[in-house]
Amino acid sequence: MGETLSGKKVAGEVIPELAAEGKKLLDRGIQPKLVIIRFGANPDDLFYEKGARKTCGQVGIAVDTRELAPDADTAALLKVVGELNDDASVHGILMMQPFPKHIDIQAVRNKIAPAKDVDGMSPFNEAKVYENDPTGFPPCTPTAVMEILKNYKIELKGKNAVVLGRSMVVGKPAAMLLLGEHATVSICHSRTADLAAAARQGDILVAAIGRARMITGHYIKPGAVVIDVGINVDKDGKMCGDVDFESAAPVAGMITPVPGGVGSVTTTVLAKHVLRAAAQAKA
Amino acid sequence: MGETLSGKKVAGEVIPELAAEGKKLLDRGIQPKLVIIRFGANPDDLFYEKGARKTCGQVGIAVDTRELAPDADTAALLKVVGELNDDASVHGILMMQPFPKHIDIQAVRNKIAPAKDVDGMSPFNEAKVYENDPTGFPPCTPTAVMEILKNYKIELKGKNAVVLGRSMVVGKPAAMLLLGEHATVSICHSRTADLAAAARQGDILVAAIGRARMITGHYIKPGAVVIDVGINVDKDGKMCGDVDFESAAPVAGMITPVPGGVGSVTTTVLAKHVLRAAAQAKA
Repeated sequence: MGETLSGKKVAGEVIPELAAEGKKLLDRGIQPKLVIIRFGANPDDLFYEKGARKTCGQVGIAVDTRELAPDADTAALLKVVGELNDDASVHGILMMQPFPKHIDIQAVRNKIAPAKDVDGMSPFNEAKVYENDPTGFPPCTPTAVMEILKNYKIELKGKNAVVLGRSMVVGKPAAMLLLGEHATVSICHSRTADLAAAARQGDILVAAIGRARMITGHYIKPGAVVIDVGINVDKDGKMCGDVDFESAAPVAGMITPVPGGVGSVTTTVLAKHVLRAAAQAKA
Repeated sequence: MGETLSGKKVAGEVIPELAAEGKKLLDRGIQPKLVIIRFGANPDDLFYEKGARKTCGQVGIAVDTRELAPDADTAALLKVVGELNDDASVHGILMMQPFPKHIDIQAVRNKIAPAKDVDGMSPFNEAKVYENDPTGFPPCTPTAVMEILKNYKIELKGKNAVVLGRSMVVGKPAAMLLLGEHATVSICHSRTADLAAAARQGDILVAAIGRARMITGHYIKPGAVVIDVGINVDKDGKMCGDVDFESAAPVAGMITPVPGGVGSVTTTVLAKHVLRAAAQAKA
């Protein structure tokens, strides 16, 4: 039975370090601040915001929310982003996604100040992740994957890492971050001919396909490290990952649960990014 | 014996199409123009420039060269780039690389106007390649790889594509372009544990590691399509690729030679990008 990789444990170890950094900033007279932008108040956003506020509170980051009407247009969003870009008291900006369909995402991505873009949506930060330039902000979720691997001291150099999924928020940046740690990286997706065979090449397997419990033990190389990025709701309304934990755990060497895995580290990474943004901000 | 994939044939077929586009632009009163920037006059740069001028000449693109002194500083280069950015008669800017060591490449990359960045060095174009946004300019060399695969109607969807090398000018953009065509993509490099075994997974194998004739038949899946991006000089002073053609060709299904392969298509892609830049430029 594979060892469970606990995101809660990782967060529990990283948060005190971040709190010490937060205190240093306060001692220098800097109050780190995150502003969350959301459209309306849908339950998923509020759930994430609650977690973000809790983690930020633990490390000394102030959090404000700017709620726009659900039908607010792109111009209204750009106006808020512009104000926050110009406000020196704001160090990080997090926009809840997905946006309403009528929003011009490209315009928003081009507007956000790269130095405040703590969830890595700006083309500048994307390019830095792609270039393996550590001064950029990668999106929080794939960074959480890397935090777990690092915390458990999992060797990546020369290992086969297989990423299932090629989204800009998880799959591609996870692939680039793993490549930056010198793993040999394969990116699989819905068109991959034999997904199970491809997945079984992975010493490290990162699942980010958004399909509840699709990845059974059949997809897993015996002893592999399995990181489940999926957050799905099954037909009984229960939260579950992309990996079928019961089937996969006996094959895997190490495996993250859902909940309690990657999701538990994401807001920790967010807080880490806000602290870095605050430390780098011009006074 | 694998079929030889001729870059010269591909260029020969694409250039007349580009010439027709060039003529249409001229008919609209637009003279497409490329400016090449180089430091001094080293033989490699002059060789490439000669090829670029020939191809551009065939399709109706005017070419100017701005030669800087070998010891010109970053400020001098940025000044030239700024002038060309602002000059509406210039549609494409190509900077010969590698730059002298004293040049701040990051500053240059951030300076070039993305719309004139026909060899894809700007972070904006990098981000677009990474995002699979076709409005960007990928670097010419990996795009030449794709032109050859397209010209020979090689199916990519669901195939295993293995890229050897992870540079920003070839390996990574080639991986992204192949992923955009729905291949399952693996990126291998110097730290890959068993490079030959990894390479043999490839239905399509792209070699971009910069080591003369390293990739022998032992690295190749029988019947694979082998694209050799390497341009090396062997110990006898002879130009050769990363692939040992004599050893690889009997195993491969299709294979590019060096010279006469990818290198023969690169300036064609450059010309194609300049024409697109000219067509999109605001009058």
